[in-house]
Amino acid sequence: MKKPWSGRFTRRTSGIVESFSESVSFDNRLWRYDIEGSVAHARMLGRQRIISRREAEMIVKGLGEIASEIAAGKFKFKRELEDIHMNIEASLIKKIGPVGKKLHTARSRNDQVALDMRLYLREETKEILSMINKLQKTILEIAGRHVGTVMPGYTHTQRAQPVLFSHHLLVYVEMLQRDKGRFEDCLKRMNVLPLGSCALAGTTLPIDRAYVAKILGFDAVSGNSMDAVSDRDFALEFLSSSSIAASHLSRLAEELVLWSTEEFGLIEISDTFTTGSSIMPQKKNPDVAEIIRGKTGRVYGSLVALLTLMKALPLTYNRDMQEDKPPLFDAVDTLKSCLSVTDAMLPEITFNTERMSNTAGSGYSTATDLAEYLVRKGVPFREAHEITGRVVLYCIRGKKDLQSLELAELKAFSRLISADVFKALDPSRSVTARSSFGGTAPSEVLRQLKYFRKILK
Amino acid sequence: MKKPWSGRFTRRTSGIVESFSESVSFDNRLWRYDIEGSVAHARMLGRQRIISRREAEMIVKGLGEIASEIAAGKFKFKRELEDIHMNIEASLIKKIGPVGKKLHTARSRNDQVALDMRLYLREETKEILSMINKLQKTILEIAGRHVGTVMPGYTHTQRAQPVLFSHHLLVYVEMLQRDKGRFEDCLKRMNVLPLGSCALAGTTLPIDRAYVAKILGFDAVSGNSMDAVSDRDFALEFLSSSSIAASHLSRLAEELVLWSTEEFGLIEISDTFTTGSSIMPQKKNPDVAEIIRGKTGRVYGSLVALLTLMKALPLTYNRDMQEDKPPLFDAVDTLKSCLSVTDAMLPEITFNTERMSNTAGSGYSTATDLAEYLVRKGVPFREAHEITGRVVLYCIRGKKDLQSLELAELKAFSRLISADVFKALDPSRSVTARSSFGGTAPSEVLRQLKYFRKILK
Amino acid sequence: MKKPWSGRFTRRTSGIVESFSESVSFDNRLWRYDIEGSVAHARMLGRQRIISRREAEMIVKGLGEIASEIAAGKFKFKRELEDIHMNIEASLIKKIGPVGKKLHTARSRNDQVALDMRLYLREETKEILSMINKLQKTILEIAGRHVGTVMPGYTHTQRAQPVLFSHHLLVYVEMLQRDKGRFEDCLKRMNVLPLGSCALAGTTLPIDRAYVAKILGFDAVSGNSMDAVSDRDFALEFLSSSSIAASHLSRLAEELVLWSTEEFGLIEISDTFTTGSSIMPQKKNPDVAEIIRGKTGRVYGSLVALLTLMKALPLTYNRDMQEDKPPLFDAVDTLKSCLSVTDAMLPEITFNTERMSNTAGSGYSTATDLAEYLVRKGVPFREAHEITGRVVLYCIRGKKDLQSLELAELKAFSRLISADVFKALDPSRSVTARSSFGGTAPSEVLRQLKYFRKILK
Amino acid sequence: MKKPWSGRFTRRTSGIVESFSESVSFDNRLWRYDIEGSVAHARMLGRQRIISRREAEMIVKGLGEIASEIAAGKFKFKRELEDIHMNIEASLIKKIGPVGKKLHTARSRNDQVALDMRLYLREETKEILSMINKLQKTILEIAGRHVGTVMPGYTHTQRAQPVLFSHHLLVYVEMLQRDKGRFEDCLKRMNVLPLGSCALAGTTLPIDRAYVAKILGFDAVSGNSMDAVSDRDFALEFLSSSSIAASHLSRLAEELVLWSTEEFGLIEISDTFTTGSSIMPQKKNPDVAEIIRGKTGRVYGSLVALLTLMKALPLTYNRDMQEDKPPLFDAVDTLKSCLSVTDAMLPEITFNTERMSNTAGSGYSTATDLAEYLVRKGVPFREAHEITGRVVLYCIRGKKDLQSLELAELKAFSRLISADVFKALDPSRSVTARSSFGGTAPSEVLRQLKYFRKILK
Repeated sequence: MKKPWSGRFTRRTSGIVESFSESVSFDNRLWRYDIEGSVAHARMLGRQRIISRREAEMIVKGLGEIASEIAAGKFKFKRELEDIHMNIEASLIKKIGPVGKKLHTARSRNDQVALDMRLYLREETKEILSMINKLQKTILEIAGRHVGTVMPGYTHTQRAQPVLFSHHLLVYVEMLQRDKGRFEDCLKRMNVLPLGSCALAGTTLPIDRAYVAKILGFDAVSGNSMDAVSDRDFALEFLSSSSIAASHLSRLAEELVLWSTEEFGLIEISDTFTTGSSIMPQKKNPDVAEIIRGKTGRVYGSLVALLTLMKALPLTYNRDMQEDKPPLFDAVDTLKSCLSVTDAMLPEITFNTERMSNTAGSGYSTATDLAEYLVRKGVPFREAHEITGRVVLYCIRGKKDLQSLELAELKAFSRLISADVFKALDPSRSVTARSSFGGTAPSEVLRQLKYFRKILK
Repeated sequence: MKKPWSGRFTRRTSGIVESFSESVSFDNRLWRYDIEGSVAHARMLGRQRIISRREAEMIVKGLGEIASEIAAGKFKFKRELEDIHMNIEASLIKKIGPVGKKLHTARSRNDQVALDMRLYLREETKEILSMINKLQKTILEIAGRHVGTVMPGYTHTQRAQPVLFSHHLLVYVEMLQRDKGRFEDCLKRMNVLPLGSCALAGTTLPIDRAYVAKILGFDAVSGNSMDAVSDRDFALEFLSSSSIAASHLSRLAEELVLWSTEEFGLIEISDTFTTGSSIMPQKKNPDVAEIIRGKTGRVYGSLVALLTLMKALPLTYNRDMQEDKPPLFDAVDTLKSCLSVTDAMLPEITFNTERMSNTAGSGYSTATDLAEYLVRKGVPFREAHEITGRVVLYCIRGKKDLQSLELAELKAFSRLISADVFKALDPSRSVTARSSFGGTAPSEVLRQLKYFRKILK
Repeated sequence: MKKPWSGRFTRRTSGIVESFSESVSFDNRLWRYDIEGSVAHARMLGRQRIISRREAEMIVKGLGEIASEIAAGKFKFKRELEDIHMNIEASLIKKIGPVGKKLHTARSRNDQVALDMRLYLREETKEILSMINKLQKTILEIAGRHVGTVMPGYTHTQRAQPVLFSHHLLVYVEMLQRDKGRFEDCLKRMNVLPLGSCALAGTTLPIDRAYVAKILGFDAVSGNSMDAVSDRDFALEFLSSSSIAASHLSRLAEELVLWSTEEFGLIEISDTFTTGSSIMPQKKNPDVAEIIRGKTGRVYGSLVALLTLMKALPLTYNRDMQEDKPPLFDAVDTLKSCLSVTDAMLPEITFNTERMSNTAGSGYSTATDLAEYLVRKGVPFREAHEITGRVVLYCIRGKKDLQSLELAELKAFSRLISADVFKALDPSRSVTARSSFGGTAPSEVLRQLKYFRKILK
Repeated sequence: MKKPWSGRFTRRTSGIVESFSESVSFDNRLWRYDIEGSVAHARMLGRQRIISRREAEMIVKGLGEIASEIAAGKFKFKRELEDIHMNIEASLIKKIGPVGKKLHTARSRNDQVALDMRLYLREETKEILSMINKLQKTILEIAGRHVGTVMPGYTHTQRAQPVLFSHHLLVYVEMLQRDKGRFEDCLKRMNVLPLGSCALAGTTLPIDRAYVAKILGFDAVSGNSMDAVSDRDFALEFLSSSSIAASHLSRLAEELVLWSTEEFGLIEISDTFTTGSSIMPQKKNPDVAEIIRGKTGRVYGSLVALLTLMKALPLTYNRDMQEDKPPLFDAVDTLKSCLSVTDAMLPEITFNTERMSNTAGSGYSTATDLAEYLVRKGVPFREAHEITGRVVLYCIRGKKDLQSLELAELKAFSRLISADVFKALDPSRSVTARSSFGGTAPSEVLRQLKYFRKILK
């Protein structure tokens, strides 16, 4: 098959080159955006009389038919036609004749692929935003049901202080909220029309880029044609935002794995979201959470792949940039599947709230409350900290709980301690008392819930 | 030396642990922010009567003296005091006595270090924004001087079409503009006060976080105490933005290296910004550009380091997070030094505009103009492309330039070609004619210059 | 479809989990190795009388039929059967009845997949070794044809000293030789049988692992069952070696891109290994080299993906490890295609040896020879270097070549210079004289050629 | 200060360039190797009569004095002298006069720094090998003390089957053994002399590289001068091996963190290897393990940094390569400190063997033994697995342990079950019975212990 650029060539492309350099096996995923962009381009060409109105209509109609064929699975993609662009153009020419040869007027594959990628990523980013929103609501719903549940709050994976389980869950809502902010900012910078930059220098033909931008819903038109075909910032920024989001999902996944252990015993994931072992009949494994955790590396790897690719590339378009697609597509698919499966899994978890409550007060977790109690009695914090440390050591040696100490025992450490100390040592009261802004007191958690319910609508 | 948390411990920390786990050897860079944060915290404690006004004043005064000592290089950092926070607190206690032990009331190192990092990175991000702005102006100034210079525009490192040298330079202004957008968005999400989240759960003491935020210039107060001490998104986002910016600088560096070769011969970097060889007396190497290119990896590596660190960390604070500092500090220093040396180097470059112009028309770089000429005569683009391809092949075989062809020779390829074709084949006219929005025509480049001059002020 | 581990489960796996956690869509590539391993396992079970000889034969026969079906494309992989292992086992049971249920005796998917991966990677590594060897021979062949060609040797992409083109090409033979060493060492550590480690603890049944190792060609049997199912070092080491190899190919690709420019003009890649532009009819781009360069990032990204995945995974098998496959498979495919296309492309390059020779002496590239000439006359090297530097400066100012200087001009810089200096300034003689071991003299290059011809056979 | 290469330059290096491009602030760490290499070089120059014997002696003596000064901390490194090489040479010239200017004869900084790096990394690699060996012995020693301790073996962080604690510990000995293999292979490829390759092309002077190799203990002399100055494979391979080793340490660190939780409660790290909280008086955190886990990212990041740097670098030496040092040095320091602190920490851990044993049999961890019991009675494994799964479900519903079932209850699931089943259900017997090669039976663990005791000497 003759290449569209074969005019100056005397020998045919090698087969090995065709299969090495083709991209249609993966960029066919862009077909919808390629056609959408070509339709807008053709309309503009007709409107500007670069081609006739009738020609423009023929092209638009032909492209519509191709879209239907592809959607119906009837279109045959050919590797020897290199990429999605040439596959569609060749089909168009076959379908509507020589007029089809006018579609590529005033554009190049360099700006065309930049357009397709932006249209594609814009849609995927919007979908990811909506999936994150949905996941936040799912978490919010669970958090809303558990405002009464106290659990051990951890630092260093050691029990630290009692917290509300809802407070813990809301951390993920916060993380995801920042993720949305990053994706939205990314979207803002992505939503700029590159088409009309042509190969690198713009065109001598009287195109109207603003019109194309309007049809395609772009906020702006790229201001420098060489930049428009050299730039993959939008993909790098998307991959960065995805990597940060993946790190968040990995932290949640890690917690689900930990909480599922017999040792923690804080949750049970339902049969529908766990799998068994081919050899050990008793096993019920948190596979889904593990796979999410494992997929983190894949998203990071995609970011590294594209950062490496873009390093030290001279201007403008270089064919290396074709390799932006596999890592980008993989990251999109990976992130979406992780968001969606997390969202589906969370409601399938039974939370062992009894065990949460039972362990919340263990591990001397109200020691800080004792220290703050002493501060309220006028002891400098550092001294209060040290006194409390000695109380804890006394408890460890005597195998006692803080709550079970007699007042006399406590007084031995500081005369300022009186009967009201036991309020401070009670885990539930400890939680209630931490009502500083953003603290774990029910009042504060309810405020957070209300805030997110409002903004997530 | 007794540790501030030693109450419950019966044995001393091992020496190997002290030197392995200490961070003061690198986090001492945060001293200014640590003190700034402590001053704000102490004022709030006094205002809220958690400590007395007088105590607050003593603490503020003591911290001021410590700041002066550190600034003057008279402060001795001690490894056995672990980190910058404990070094300063211990010094304060020594200086003002037991009152100093009240400073750590209602805070933890967990929220304190989160505060210090945000204050530090906020300042560095602002400085980076200002350095990028300065670099853009430097490039703009050079671009402004070269609107008349035509050069070969490249794709695939092959001469493609003539472009204005200014147009090429402005690509970097565009890249850097997006970088600023990313750093500004990062700043927006970073500028949230974590202090008052304490270890993870907030406090029972009546603190006023909004007041602290106001003193320290934060836009908002973090809404979830557990999130505030678990979160390093601001650092990850900063490193992502830095990596993308580093990729841009690496592209410019690559071009400077290429252009400096005898083969390209487009620029000469002055003696002050090149170095020689220890063995080859004739060498004058673009070392600075090479080092910038090489440092790209370091910024990428820092991003990978922190992404790896954050992967699958359970909530909330984990000591792993101490290791966020070395990669972050290294990336800040690396990016700043690259921006600053690029900015200083560019004015030290002599541009060989004559050679640029001479080569602009070579390599059949106006072939696209011929194709577009045919399009204007009514030939479908694909045919026009093919006809032109054959003309180019004819030239290659006959070792001729496009511009040197006779009209008769051209007409042999298409009867539609007439004498006006020679305008299309002239590199300068080719450039002038590419006046589509964002194109390389002088009119468009002047528009871009005007735009950036205005927004960069 | 009932899961093979469903005994203790009361509810079915969710559809979203099935599609999220299945791996058969990508691990089906392991079918050949899975069957090979199962055949060996069944034989051993029969030999050890854990199952009867007849049962073993039935299983082996059944597996053989399945292999034929898969090879013929007639096998239907089912996602709900999770992975390649269960797909084959289920088909076996269907084919030979209850006896098929005995195949999984004394093994687990944990050791089975470790086996499959090692068998797969062993074969791919061997193929990669053979492809590298082939590529070395191709380079050697070209180097052998160009022993007479002098070209500029570069440091900092600046002409430095004349070298033989063959000497330059042989650098890649050296790099690839080290790559082979790394892959061979990797193979050595990979070629250890994990099967028989079962889920993690070994088995109570009287298996004979040494026999299985012998059938499957393993050098050793893994010594610790928990390690055998936890370990992915072999994949990490393979990905590291692949990343280093990819960096080598990227350096060659970069040079091909540079040399293809009109500015360097040192090579022309044939029409069969270049492609054109959809808009610029004159373009002939080194796309293949660019894509190789771009694919480097993909291999690096795969390494990062797996390193991230393995970070901080507790023992033993975790489902995260299923995600080792996509990056590994992608790296295998990428490296193989890059090796193969490089090997095919090199013979399709025309080397412009005339231009190489013409430029070899330019850029004062024999200045070092002048310095060494002075050293031979007794001048300390540092002084000789400085004298020569001044000569070069004199030439630059006077726009003269070193070779074109008069003896008198030279003598003005050092009285020790006499007529024999001109030998030192001649590029060809310069090359010939650099006969230190490993130097660029023809004698040395011939030695290198001979050495590699011998070891590459 | 005059630069050693300033002959052809007319203007001085800019201050900003000096501080940007200098490397002596970090490469001064190479001083010992730089001097060792120079001494060998000088001896060879004298032996070959390229300089006189007396001159060689003067140089060697001068270098020895400089070494003493540096070792004593009396040497002043100057940034304006760029790097360690020029700092030492300048000092030599100052010390012994013009003869010092002869040292740099027949070498370049390009081969000199390659030499220094190899000498440095060879020593560090040997030290790392010895540290790994030491750590293995420490683990072995602990494993040897715990052959009698049964614990739960985990897959998916879920209790799977009882294993010996020693068996679990020996996994790390296996991992570290492979690490040593990789470092040894790396050492083998690293131990090749680059000196004498000069800038890139060898020299015209009659040097004897084999003699230098012999003095410096190199196994071989590099065969291609251009390769020798272009190559950083040895550093990449070292960083790859370090990254894999870091992943191993991160897995151990993760387990120590998990086991230290109150939930797992399997170990207690002594006061000397934990630290406390600045706010929570009761906390005792496994900081050291956490920091090790966090430092993993730093090693990975260093690998990514150098891989990025080397991507697409044309031959031969480029200044980018100066940036190989910071990531390499950081990785060396990080890995060494992690190895050393792990080695010191392990003996400071108290293992709660009682709790290990108590939990070993929980979680139906002998279910696989029941299945294998049925296999021995002739039930096909898949059926045995399913029967056992139903038994487990029955236990879960009835809140019973496997071991506590009555024979009658068991028989209800399979008539083949008889009184001998209880042996299979006993955790200790389960362990003892898993005596397949590499299995967890004491006999096998003793074999492993014996093996490693022998090879680790």
